[in-house]
Amino acid sequence: MLQEEDGARGERSSSHPAPVSGEIFEVRYKLRFGQCDPAGIAFFPRLVEMVNWTVEDWFDGALGATFHQIHIEEKRGMPAASVSVDFRGPARLGDIVVFRLAVAAIGRSSVTLDIRADHEDGRKVLTARHVIVHCDLSGEAPKSLPLPDDLRRAIGCYLVAQTTG
Amino acid sequence: MLQEEDGARGERSSSHPAPVSGEIFEVRYKLRFGQCDPAGIAFFPRLVEMVNWTVEDWFDGALGATFHQIHIEEKRGMPAASVSVDFRGPARLGDIVVFRLAVAAIGRSSVTLDIRADHEDGRKVLTARHVIVHCDLSGEAPKSLPLPDDLRRAIGCYLVAQTTG
Amino acid sequence: MLQEEDGARGERSSSHPAPVSGEIFEVRYKLRFGQCDPAGIAFFPRLVEMVNWTVEDWFDGALGATFHQIHIEEKRGMPAASVSVDFRGPARLGDIVVFRLAVAAIGRSSVTLDIRADHEDGRKVLTARHVIVHCDLSGEAPKSLPLPDDLRRAIGCYLVAQTTG
Amino acid sequence: MLQEEDGARGERSSSHPAPVSGEIFEVRYKLRFGQCDPAGIAFFPRLVEMVNWTVEDWFDGALGATFHQIHIEEKRGMPAASVSVDFRGPARLGDIVVFRLAVAAIGRSSVTLDIRADHEDGRKVLTARHVIVHCDLSGEAPKSLPLPDDLRRAIGCYLVAQTTG
Repeated sequence: MLQEEDGARGERSSSHPAPVSGEIFEVRYKLRFGQCDPAGIAFFPRLVEMVNWTVEDWFDGALGATFHQIHIEEKRGMPAASVSVDFRGPARLGDIVVFRLAVAAIGRSSVTLDIRADHEDGRKVLTARHVIVHCDLSGEAPKSLPLPDDLRRAIGCYLVAQTTG
Repeated sequence: MLQEEDGARGERSSSHPAPVSGEIFEVRYKLRFGQCDPAGIAFFPRLVEMVNWTVEDWFDGALGATFHQIHIEEKRGMPAASVSVDFRGPARLGDIVVFRLAVAAIGRSSVTLDIRADHEDGRKVLTARHVIVHCDLSGEAPKSLPLPDDLRRAIGCYLVAQTTG
Repeated sequence: MLQEEDGARGERSSSHPAPVSGEIFEVRYKLRFGQCDPAGIAFFPRLVEMVNWTVEDWFDGALGATFHQIHIEEKRGMPAASVSVDFRGPARLGDIVVFRLAVAAIGRSSVTLDIRADHEDGRKVLTARHVIVHCDLSGEAPKSLPLPDDLRRAIGCYLVAQTTG
Repeated sequence: MLQEEDGARGERSSSHPAPVSGEIFEVRYKLRFGQCDPAGIAFFPRLVEMVNWTVEDWFDGALGATFHQIHIEEKRGMPAASVSVDFRGPARLGDIVVFRLAVAAIGRSSVTLDIRADHEDGRKVLTARHVIVHCDLSGEAPKSLPLPDDLRRAIGCYLVAQTTG
C-alpha cells in the first residue's frame, strides 16, 4: 500500500510548535522540443514528470540521500501516493521554468510537498501538491517504512509554517 | 488562461435532473518495460500520461471528433486545467491496466472527468479527477471556447449521475 | 559489455543452409498527441521507442518468453547493442503505423533485427537495424549469456533468408 | 522527404581543404530515475532522446539560432534523416553523462553529426552518427531547404577534419 498510514503530522501540529526553517528548494528546467506537443505548448504529463525531477534533484542535491543510494544501494524508495496539479498558464518551447519545492507536512513515513512552477518573469505555470511515501521496495510490493531520523531532519528544513485559523 | 471560466455546471445541478446515460469508456494498456522504473513498478508520470491517452482514445474512438481533426485541422484543443491522481496500488512490468472514464460535469467550455485504472482482477491502480478545457489554439495563448453542440452532446452520453445527500 | 562477442552467425552462414521460416512479426501503434512535436510530426526518439515496443511485443506475444519473466523473474534481459534508423517519411498525429520485425542473424547471444514501419497505405516511415544481446542482469553490469535453446528456436522462426551474391 | 538530396559534401572534400576549427560542443545530463528501466540501467530510447537534447542545446547555446526561433517563429526545423547508435557500456541511475558533438560533414541542407557520450571518468556510454536536415515545415510535409549562410558558418566551426587514406 502506498498510502500513508497515519495521516500527515508535522511538528507544526504540536501545541508548542518548533520554529520551522522554511527553506525553499529551487531548480530550473528548459522546456524542450520533445516535451512540447503539436499545440506548441508543454505536453502536461511532461510537466508532471518535472514535478518528479524536482523531488529527485532535491534528494540528490539538498537532502544528503541520493536517489541512487536510496533505490539501488538500499532498495528503498519514495513512491507517489498522490499528485494534484493545477495548470495556471502555458509554457512554451525554450521557456525556462523555475520549480520551487516546500514541505507542507511530514508524517511517519509520508511527506507532503507543495511545488510550484513559474516563468522567470513570474507568470505562473503550475501549482502542485504531491505526497510521497518512504517505502521498503525489497519485497514483492512497496511497504511503507518510517522515515529515518537524518532524512526526517533534512526534510524538516524545508517545512513551511502553516497559517492556522 | 486554461482555467474554466464559469465553474463546472452539468445538467445534474438542475433541480429536475435530466436522465443521464452514464456510459463508461474503457481502454486497456500494457505496462511496458520503458514505463517502469528501477523499482520495477510503473513510473508514476507514465501513468499520468496514460490518463491523457485515455482521453485521446475517447475522442478518437467514441466522440466522433479525433485529436487529429481538432488539433491539426481546426487548431483547437483540450488542454488540461488540472489533474489530481491518487495512486492506490502498484502496477508492474507486463500488467494489463484497465482505464475507465466517466464524465462528472460539463461546463461551458470545460469537462470534468473521473478516470480510474484497475488491474484486470480488480485490484486498484489509481483514481483521477481531470479537468480539460475546450480552447482555441490558433493564437498566441490558448483561449477557452464554448463546447460545440455536437461535441457537448457526445460527451453528455458519458455523464454520470451524482448521488447527492 | 553489451557488444556481441563472436559476430552474428546464423544458420544461413552454413554452406548447406537450413530452410528458414521467415515469419514476420507485425504490430500497429497509433501515433499519439504526446508523441508528436511542435512541428506536428512524430518526435523521432518516440519512433525509436516504438522500435523497442515492437521487440517487447514480439517477446510477449510470439516467443513464449515475456519481458516480465525474463527481466523480473529471471534477472536476464535483452539490452540494445546498437540501433540504426533511417527515417523515410513523416508520421503525423493519429496515424496508424505498422511495425514489422524480421530476424537478420542470430549469434551466440545476440540477435540482429530488421524492423520497418510503414503507413497502412504503404508509405514508408522508417527502416531500422537493431542488435540486442541476451544478458545476465543479476550482477553489477550486464554480462552476455548464450541464448537458451528454446528461445533460439522461437527466434529462428523469424529468420529471413539473406540473398547472397 | 527527409533525406538529404545531394549527399554530404563538406569543405573537407575539396582538394585544397580549408582549415577546420574543430570545436566540440559539450553538455552533461544526469541520468534520472524515470529514464532508467527495471534493469536499473538507462532505457536506451531515453539515451537516443539525449542525443536530440544535445543537438537542441547546441542550437540554443552555441549556434545563435534557438529551436524556438527556428520552429515557432520561422516554421522551419531540423528533422532527423537518420540516427545510428552503438551502445558501449551501461549508464546507471544518477550517473552524469557527458555528451560531445562534432560535425562530420555539411551538405546543402543536411548536417552529419558525430555524437559520443561518456562517463565523467572516461568509460564509454555510446557513439552516434546522426544526420539532420534543414527543412521548411510550413507546408503539409517537411521540405528540405538550403542551410542559410549564417547558420552554415556557425555549424562550420564544429566541423572536424577527417583523416583520409
